[in-house]
Amino acid sequence: MGDISISNGDHHAAAVGVQRKSCWYEEEIEENLRWCFALKSILHTGASQYQDIQLLDTKPFGKALVIDGKLQSAEIDEFIYHESLVHPALLNHPSPKTIFIMGGGEGCKRREILRHWAVEKVIMCDIDEEVVDFCKSHLVVNKEAFYDPRLELIINDARAELERREEVYDVIIGDLADPIEGGPCYQLYTKSFYEFVVKPRLKHGGIFVTQAGPAGIFSHTEVFSCIYNTLRQVFKYVVPYSAHIPSYADTWGWVMASDSPFTLSADELDLRIKQRIKGENRYLDGKTFTSSSTLSKAVRKSLDNETHVYTEGNARFIYGHGSAYKQQH
Amino acid sequence: MGDISISNGDHHAAAVGVQRKSCWYEEEIEENLRWCFALKSILHTGASQYQDIQLLDTKPFGKALVIDGKLQSAEIDEFIYHESLVHPALLNHPSPKTIFIMGGGEGCKRREILRHWAVEKVIMCDIDEEVVDFCKSHLVVNKEAFYDPRLELIINDARAELERREEVYDVIIGDLADPIEGGPCYQLYTKSFYEFVVKPRLKHGGIFVTQAGPAGIFSHTEVFSCIYNTLRQVFKYVVPYSAHIPSYADTWGWVMASDSPFTLSADELDLRIKQRIKGENRYLDGKTFTSSSTLSKAVRKSLDNETHVYTEGNARFIYGHGSAYKQQH
Amino acid sequence: MGDISISNGDHHAAAVGVQRKSCWYEEEIEENLRWCFALKSILHTGASQYQDIQLLDTKPFGKALVIDGKLQSAEIDEFIYHESLVHPALLNHPSPKTIFIMGGGEGCKRREILRHWAVEKVIMCDIDEEVVDFCKSHLVVNKEAFYDPRLELIINDARAELERREEVYDVIIGDLADPIEGGPCYQLYTKSFYEFVVKPRLKHGGIFVTQAGPAGIFSHTEVFSCIYNTLRQVFKYVVPYSAHIPSYADTWGWVMASDSPFTLSADELDLRIKQRIKGENRYLDGKTFTSSSTLSKAVRKSLDNETHVYTEGNARFIYGHGSAYKQQH
Amino acid sequence: MGDISISNGDHHAAAVGVQRKSCWYEEEIEENLRWCFALKSILHTGASQYQDIQLLDTKPFGKALVIDGKLQSAEIDEFIYHESLVHPALLNHPSPKTIFIMGGGEGCKRREILRHWAVEKVIMCDIDEEVVDFCKSHLVVNKEAFYDPRLELIINDARAELERREEVYDVIIGDLADPIEGGPCYQLYTKSFYEFVVKPRLKHGGIFVTQAGPAGIFSHTEVFSCIYNTLRQVFKYVVPYSAHIPSYADTWGWVMASDSPFTLSADELDLRIKQRIKGENRYLDGKTFTSSSTLSKAVRKSLDNETHVYTEGNARFIYGHGSAYKQQH
Repeated sequence: MGDISISNGDHHAAAVGVQRKSCWYEEEIEENLRWCFALKSILHTGASQYQDIQLLDTKPFGKALVIDGKLQSAEIDEFIYHESLVHPALLNHPSPKTIFIMGGGEGCKRREILRHWAVEKVIMCDIDEEVVDFCKSHLVVNKEAFYDPRLELIINDARAELERREEVYDVIIGDLADPIEGGPCYQLYTKSFYEFVVKPRLKHGGIFVTQAGPAGIFSHTEVFSCIYNTLRQVFKYVVPYSAHIPSYADTWGWVMASDSPFTLSADELDLRIKQRIKGENRYLDGKTFTSSSTLSKAVRKSLDNETHVYTEGNARFIYGHGSAYKQQH
Repeated sequence: MGDISISNGDHHAAAVGVQRKSCWYEEEIEENLRWCFALKSILHTGASQYQDIQLLDTKPFGKALVIDGKLQSAEIDEFIYHESLVHPALLNHPSPKTIFIMGGGEGCKRREILRHWAVEKVIMCDIDEEVVDFCKSHLVVNKEAFYDPRLELIINDARAELERREEVYDVIIGDLADPIEGGPCYQLYTKSFYEFVVKPRLKHGGIFVTQAGPAGIFSHTEVFSCIYNTLRQVFKYVVPYSAHIPSYADTWGWVMASDSPFTLSADELDLRIKQRIKGENRYLDGKTFTSSSTLSKAVRKSLDNETHVYTEGNARFIYGHGSAYKQQH
Repeated sequence: MGDISISNGDHHAAAVGVQRKSCWYEEEIEENLRWCFALKSILHTGASQYQDIQLLDTKPFGKALVIDGKLQSAEIDEFIYHESLVHPALLNHPSPKTIFIMGGGEGCKRREILRHWAVEKVIMCDIDEEVVDFCKSHLVVNKEAFYDPRLELIINDARAELERREEVYDVIIGDLADPIEGGPCYQLYTKSFYEFVVKPRLKHGGIFVTQAGPAGIFSHTEVFSCIYNTLRQVFKYVVPYSAHIPSYADTWGWVMASDSPFTLSADELDLRIKQRIKGENRYLDGKTFTSSSTLSKAVRKSLDNETHVYTEGNARFIYGHGSAYKQQH
Repeated sequence: MGDISISNGDHHAAAVGVQRKSCWYEEEIEENLRWCFALKSILHTGASQYQDIQLLDTKPFGKALVIDGKLQSAEIDEFIYHESLVHPALLNHPSPKTIFIMGGGEGCKRREILRHWAVEKVIMCDIDEEVVDFCKSHLVVNKEAFYDPRLELIINDARAELERREEVYDVIIGDLADPIEGGPCYQLYTKSFYEFVVKPRLKHGGIFVTQAGPAGIFSHTEVFSCIYNTLRQVFKYVVPYSAHIPSYADTWGWVMASDSPFTLSADELDLRIKQRIKGENRYLDGKTFTSSSTLSKAVRKSLDNETHVYTEGNARFIYGHGSAYKQQH
């Protein structure tokens, strides 16, 4: 009577067979576009003073950190984002000893930075203590990075912290929310911020790198091209690059900037990776960076032609914003 | 700088404002119809030898037990189902002392039955020990019912158990899965089962009641009308009744049958509720049952005209079934 | 080589087999609850001065009229709504010759009313000419009703029209949007509207009936109980009743009111249906109305205890409303 | 009374304000991953002997051709796919006069090919006449290409057609469905097909190019690496390349193969584009192809290490396939 199966269960139980997924995480990439992951479980939900936080366990992308309803990083492909954010700048610097990170509460940046033998000191400055604590408790994979003695964690607004400090850094990394409406966030993407706050805190030969929003063939006009154009008003050498990140359902962008030229060939980059980084990169090597920093025709053209510069009174935003935005525009 | 909010979070965080729900439970009511609840959390998932089990915490309906991808009962409206299944039969019986329940692992039936002062013994027979244990651990609300000394819990196939026993009962309650394809479940809805297994185990004046599937204006033809018609081949008096259950997105049906007539008026039913049941019903009273057992024109007509009788070789099924079904029909 | 099938189609075509539904209509019943129908096609979309209009062809419910993102009526079960709205009032009236309908652009009300032999004149007053025209063009099933010589169609605000007119009616039917935020719609549900606009336009013995929003075991507290309570401040005899409508995923409510008593038994209602209505009802007969107007314990209790009365400065709303609502409350 | 808006519409109309999208196209990219587009309309649905066909009008991606529930090409980004499939091969060939396309019913390939001044003859061979006719009628943008005198359209299985023909071609293009389970489609991706059917039909110096399935950082192991590895068993020079296509929610792959070396630099490619192609490419130029054909570390590694070769008895499949697949693997 092995196949009696559901004869004696409760009312309206379903038939045998391939079971459909029933629990889903759903994100509105844009108003007209949704991206949905089957859910294994909802590990934690919480809210800080600033943001709603969720840690989900998803079937396609593993554990996923969601802040204010937007996927921040997913277990199986965060290495693409974080290797791309951290390594090109540190490898192009002749000797990256001191690093300042704006944002970056969830810890993966630190993990990548601390893999560099040369690094002596990392200041991480995030405004949201609860997110930092949440990630420290729940994202086991990055735990080590939280306890490395080279790391100093500051809870403060990044701008205020940089303005207050007098020391200078080899590399400054911006891992901030995209410039969006309704908060002063875009103030951390403006020409004056780069010119009067960031640049003075870079040592001679120092490099600034920032995440720069979606960089797909259509989506790069949202903020990527403007961040690029704003940075080239302030720095002599500016390198935009991008990579497809499956869990974001898009190609993502970063921009690296300095007053010293970026001259490494793919082979030289590979050599520095070997000499300077503990363990092996999963995503980034010389050829990968060549490909990432060679943008497609359409994107190159837009970037060349971009005239918008972020200033305090003048910002361009990505999708996800309410009434204030509509009233302004 | 109180409103700096997300300036210093991580990349691509969303704007403030009304947050869209991002985690959902989704059920296919039919192939072309879905019913989706925002999720607070996924409390437990498991699998027994027979079925997949999930306990969800949903926003619209509270905690929800899902078996094989189908909602079984939801915290905020299970009282409608369970009061409807249990009380009409027990109240119509002059003195319901011994009760046999087929199925009913999740415990709400027992809770309702044990509210009757007259009840001396309840045999609950469910084939799936793991579901019973799962519910015992996780459905706090019904815990008490699991430990009432009047309750005897048997893990066995309900048919085998009834065939094996010699004692007779005042009321037998069928809380089994709907008659579906691919398993012998419909064997617990056949004329021969009712005639040769159930009826002999009823005392003189005994009452049988069973859940009878969806009973909506269209959905009642799936199994409700056939269960009704099958029972009226076997019992002299048969009463079909129904109630809208919000979490099922449908009206649900039950059928009560006996060889003694059902003669209680609404007022007499109310009196018996007062005299016999501990605590107060939330759903069922005399008028409610009058309404429930007065079916609408379309449904009454279908039931009157139904000619199908469940036999071993001949069943009608509800939605949710694959290739075997299609090949047969 | 008969089964070569997709060897020569285009790139990434899918496998053979049961095809998943890919086009869906999705409605947010509440913020946390969605109801989704597989789509055959989107027949028409449009927008009037007042509302967005869509005519969809859905797999589970046939053609469906959607206004402002909310299902209004679906081909396969609109008869439940429309027979319930129209027939109880007309049948309870001794001789319903003149009828005034507020709203009702899509035509099904008229169809039902015009089935009554006794009816001599029907004034239908809808504010939205485009919706009326849209329905006239696209809802073939009701076309006949649009051309019946007894029908007079007025494009105006119902309140203004009733105030302007001097004639009186046997039956007035309210088929207006639920009392919702952001417009004066709730003004057509207030005590003063009923007292000073509707009642004076009823002949002696006249009957007023209105749709009254969701009437489910939980949802009836949204507006149903308040509409009921407001009407009983104005009329001597008030009868609330309800029916489950599958395509609404809920039980729906209506309230009928008069200063003459409602005394028909189920059998008398059946007799009048036979004598007075052309063709056969699909849903409503005497027993059905007995059941519909016998509310369940929980709903009866709420209605008895309801103290809220709609006045101009004081309304209660159903789900689906934006910023104005939030600012007010 | 301008704002009376919905006071006089039909029952339960919703509030004014930002309207939620209610009609959606939903695709299961994988079992656990969904990609959903808001729908403007369903333009056409049909079914051929081989496949189900839908032409949708979507909000994020414009008109979209869906075959068997899988998006084939979307108006706003099909140029990425089609420029990538066609131009690298034609540009690398010294003088591409005769072209054979396997598949490609929807017409965009032809449009791209016919932009090359050098091309004298294009044979397009698709098995599904109805799809070809459907696209001819409904995809206005490609209409011109259907009537170019250089084009010859054959309705036949591509393998049979190539085997039957004696002439040889400069370029053969494979735009076939991915090698999937349940049909002989993978036979058009096998080593023996490439060796004994395709290669003999190439002129000396001829080039073969094929779409090669998803090529994302994880998805490239589904079929891309195997198609690459199979082709390098047969041809001396094999170039895999990829591009992110937004409407596919993935990076897509192609493989180009020949017995003559591919030696064009980015600048030479740009020069040939200028000289040989009518109009301007939107996506492809020299630098874009450099980037596309420089795969990331993880993908390069997988391709280098791939050992699987498609043979008649031995295939690897992409997502979308039922029980037969699971039994085999």
